[in-house]
Amino acid sequence: MTDLQDLCFAIAQAQAAQARCLDDDRLEDWPDFFAEDCLYRVTSAENMREGYEASLIFLNSKGMVRDRVSALRTANIYERQAYRHVLGQPSILSREGESVSTETSFMIARIMRDGKTDLFATGRYLDVWLRAGTGVTLVSRVVVCDSSRIDTLLALPL
Amino acid sequence: MTDLQDLCFAIAQAQAAQARCLDDDRLEDWPDFFAEDCLYRVTSAENMREGYEASLIFLNSKGMVRDRVSALRTANIYERQAYRHVLGQPSILSREGESVSTETSFMIARIMRDGKTDLFATGRYLDVWLRAGTGVTLVSRVVVCDSSRIDTLLALPL
Amino acid sequence: MTDLQDLCFAIAQAQAAQARCLDDDRLEDWPDFFAEDCLYRVTSAENMREGYEASLIFLNSKGMVRDRVSALRTANIYERQAYRHVLGQPSILSREGESVSTETSFMIARIMRDGKTDLFATGRYLDVWLRAGTGVTLVSRVVVCDSSRIDTLLALPL
Repeated sequence: MTDLQDLCFAIAQAQAAQARCLDDDRLEDWPDFFAEDCLYRVTSAENMREGYEASLIFLNSKGMVRDRVSALRTANIYERQAYRHVLGQPSILSREGESVSTETSFMIARIMRDGKTDLFATGRYLDVWLRAGTGVTLVSRVVVCDSSRIDTLLALPL
Repeated sequence: MTDLQDLCFAIAQAQAAQARCLDDDRLEDWPDFFAEDCLYRVTSAENMREGYEASLIFLNSKGMVRDRVSALRTANIYERQAYRHVLGQPSILSREGESVSTETSFMIARIMRDGKTDLFATGRYLDVWLRAGTGVTLVSRVVVCDSSRIDTLLALPL
Repeated sequence: MTDLQDLCFAIAQAQAAQARCLDDDRLEDWPDFFAEDCLYRVTSAENMREGYEASLIFLNSKGMVRDRVSALRTANIYERQAYRHVLGQPSILSREGESVSTETSFMIARIMRDGKTDLFATGRYLDVWLRAGTGVTLVSRVVVCDSSRIDTLLALPL
């Protein structure tokens, strides 16, 4: 089991680092967690259940991930806010060669400029990771939000 | 320490899988996490403190766990809702042969059909696990809710 | 990577034990997690960003940590309440000899006597740990709350 544990540890560390990157507003570092050919998609549990392709955010290359960050910094207007992610243990769903699929539950609190804090989003990350040295790179992340209410409020990536 | 880490990893994986089973509404798979002779009990911190035996849910065999799931599917009427569990790291409390006791903090968000999300329950799992091959089986889970307000709202197992 | 994993495991176990100590109202045991020469400080993300030294709580020895507990038990008046901590995976930030710095995200729910539960605080622990045998001792903890609203409500340590 040791090898699986190593992998799970590396994934949990990468997930924690990525979440901190968003929570600390270091958005410019966020694309570095992704592989060049990657997918980042935000959808809802209902969309997943019904098989709808609709996404709240859909980025399918590292370039698009970078563009999204630029847009957030320059074009988009939204009230200043911060997130706080808390993630569960990643569950290893499957593994094929150097590629590993995991599912990880999350809760995200949102802190508004005036200090008001609420439970903003809950859901799960469906991730595909590629082993890279002693670490891992994110090939694909589908963020499945439990609630369908989230769309109009979504500024920062989850 | 390695053996303890192996055990802790196996328990955290089992807890995450079990929580996902509830969160994904795959209730029929939930009994499989339990041993044949098992206990599943939901109570409150106040009841525990006062030594009251009262439980909000009390199931003391795998058969009763299965019956509970059937009842939820057929008889009980409750508004459609989903949970999202996020669990802390399991603390190993004690260990005797193949049997291990752990305590694990949890937060559970509840997502109503209309998307409204609230922090539904917090508390801790007092678990007893039996090592089974490279994994673990749940012999006993006492769910201790921090709040005593929870009873009337409780439909799904926590 | 194994040695890093051992360390991370020991830290996560110590953090979980310390959080349970607060959540179970076993405040008298809380100082035992600290080294004799230690720092415990609570501040806000805004204070950190602006470089302000101001702290909501500032304790710079184990004796002061003990005094704080005594004060809570005898002098301070606050409505009875309990916390529930849920922590993310500790991220190892740096390591020098036997000393390790970590950052760990947290959410803390507060449960009032009447059972009312809310998301009380979110933030991150900036910790420095010293390896001690197979375990770790806390040399320094800076609790950085995401919100600046927290001060007037703060009775128990976070």
